[in-house]
Amino acid sequence: MKIKRGFLATLALGSALAFGSMATAQTADPLPSWNDGKAKQSIIAFVAKVTKEGSSYFVTPAKRIATFDNDGTLWAEQPMYFQVLFALDRVKTLAPQHPEWKDEEPFASLLKGDVKAALAGGKHAILEIIMATHAGMTTEEFEKVVKDWLATAKHPTTKRPYTEMVYQPMLEVLAYLRANGFKNFIVSGGGIEFMRPWTEKVYGIPPEEVVGSSIKTKFEMHDGKPVLVRLPELNFFDDKEGKPVAINQHIGRRPIAAFGNSDGDLQMLQWTAAGKGARFMLIVHHTDAEREWAYDRKSKIGHLDKALDEALNSGWTVVDMKQDWKVIYPFQLK
Amino acid sequence: MKIKRGFLATLALGSALAFGSMATAQTADPLPSWNDGKAKQSIIAFVAKVTKEGSSYFVTPAKRIATFDNDGTLWAEQPMYFQVLFALDRVKTLAPQHPEWKDEEPFASLLKGDVKAALAGGKHAILEIIMATHAGMTTEEFEKVVKDWLATAKHPTTKRPYTEMVYQPMLEVLAYLRANGFKNFIVSGGGIEFMRPWTEKVYGIPPEEVVGSSIKTKFEMHDGKPVLVRLPELNFFDDKEGKPVAINQHIGRRPIAAFGNSDGDLQMLQWTAAGKGARFMLIVHHTDAEREWAYDRKSKIGHLDKALDEALNSGWTVVDMKQDWKVIYPFQLK
Repeated sequence: MKIKRGFLATLALGSALAFGSMATAQTADPLPSWNDGKAKQSIIAFVAKVTKEGSSYFVTPAKRIATFDNDGTLWAEQPMYFQVLFALDRVKTLAPQHPEWKDEEPFASLLKGDVKAALAGGKHAILEIIMATHAGMTTEEFEKVVKDWLATAKHPTTKRPYTEMVYQPMLEVLAYLRANGFKNFIVSGGGIEFMRPWTEKVYGIPPEEVVGSSIKTKFEMHDGKPVLVRLPELNFFDDKEGKPVAINQHIGRRPIAAFGNSDGDLQMLQWTAAGKGARFMLIVHHTDAEREWAYDRKSKIGHLDKALDEALNSGWTVVDMKQDWKVIYPFQLK
Repeated sequence: MKIKRGFLATLALGSALAFGSMATAQTADPLPSWNDGKAKQSIIAFVAKVTKEGSSYFVTPAKRIATFDNDGTLWAEQPMYFQVLFALDRVKTLAPQHPEWKDEEPFASLLKGDVKAALAGGKHAILEIIMATHAGMTTEEFEKVVKDWLATAKHPTTKRPYTEMVYQPMLEVLAYLRANGFKNFIVSGGGIEFMRPWTEKVYGIPPEEVVGSSIKTKFEMHDGKPVLVRLPELNFFDDKEGKPVAINQHIGRRPIAAFGNSDGDLQMLQWTAAGKGARFMLIVHHTDAEREWAYDRKSKIGHLDKALDEALNSGWTVVDMKQDWKVIYPFQLK
């Protein structure tokens, strides 16, 4: 009986504490790194609307699905997608095992330190680099490679680990939605297995809620042990029209909220907007040349043109990073 | 203050009730439709092992992933996979729009009622039937077709709706695992969009936890509204070696428990077994010719041969349906 009573007391205390924190949550600012303004207000108004029982906009928790692009929406993407920087580092690491790379583009230029020449081949060159650095090993081996790289690699301009270059205001949105019964999915053009090793720790998003581009894998027995070998063949490119396809394939429900920053997110935002009931669409507009980067219609990375027009025409939320965000990265918090 | 006090009292009462039901859960039988025996004991012993804090076998809730085959594991699959029966019904429904089917196999035989002749073309014939009946419409239209069919179709021998032909003992396993912090995924050779319209209601498994075979879809704008059109092209066949591939792609974590009934599940079971720590692998062996069906090594549907040998050699749990299950279907409960 002693244990039971103690347990009951703990539960009662837990309830009191839970009540306390709930009371706090109602009054405390859920988005402290956001300046007061239309963007912040629109997020809070949407969450209030869909979580208010009895309201015609109420959405049951199981259907509170939110999807987030990653590059440029949850973490930075300049001067180049971080996964490309990872691939470039991998080429250097793997070069001793590939003497032929000295004479083969795009590797030859890369190894001479001429990234621009290496990437002159455009998408084809990038794909070759990705396949050479992301395939030919088991899924477990690749996970280790990603973790090892993230543990040591530093961003070229901030000199910070890449996983620190996530947007503090967006971390607050993730936590706010989660606290209100949402399930947050990443739906990114980036590699699904490049993200999964760290998204749970950094964003609180577990592997099964990460959707991304992928290469094919093959089940094989190695010395009686089953492994999945990563093949140098594209499986799915999760960008533009691919995003609604992947959302349907992976989640099987239409999101009620979607967050992006580029034309690569346009179809995901359209797909989200076209559902019935309350909807929330947000675009992070990179307007802060001083604290982050400023780019949109003319940028190759994070190209934002049509999606910006549609956001303005359709009344989607457009975040003006310079105006709306008090800080950019968590390490800037005082 | 009145509201606050009332709320606090409700929480305290809730805690007391929660404690009451937890105490019950510890003594009540979590698997009442299972006869006492090795199979039932093995399930309970595994759950106890991985949920006991401080134990070297303890698994944090986030990693408690269980995967279930569907046909023959969660619901019946005789005299033919239910999705094939759905497709055959669809051919009849769609025939007036396809006058050419009168002279084209496998449709001509089907429309004459000669299923055997229609399926004589083997996998190719089945694929043609599937593509003709599952593609050429939007995802929303297909969902409606599946729901409408399930609402009226009856199984040829039991005359029950298909969604009543689920295994009561397995529903109890799903609920028992869920109550112990597991996330249950379906990983089936069946069509992902054929299962999602009903798995949440019937199994408590939401769309995002359903993995299956799929055809390709394409994002299109129809009259300014975005839709996903189902194409007559296979996207992924989620069977045999495909199951670990799909588990990795969709879940991104290795299951710690897996449930199947045929050689199509062997690689999923091997993949699960090869992980570190406590593992649980179970095969439903169809041994009950009277209450369900008896089939294994010589059956085309639910072919169970190599996986049975490996289960016996490796000490996986093999459910003897006739011996281990008190009832088969929920409607047999008194």
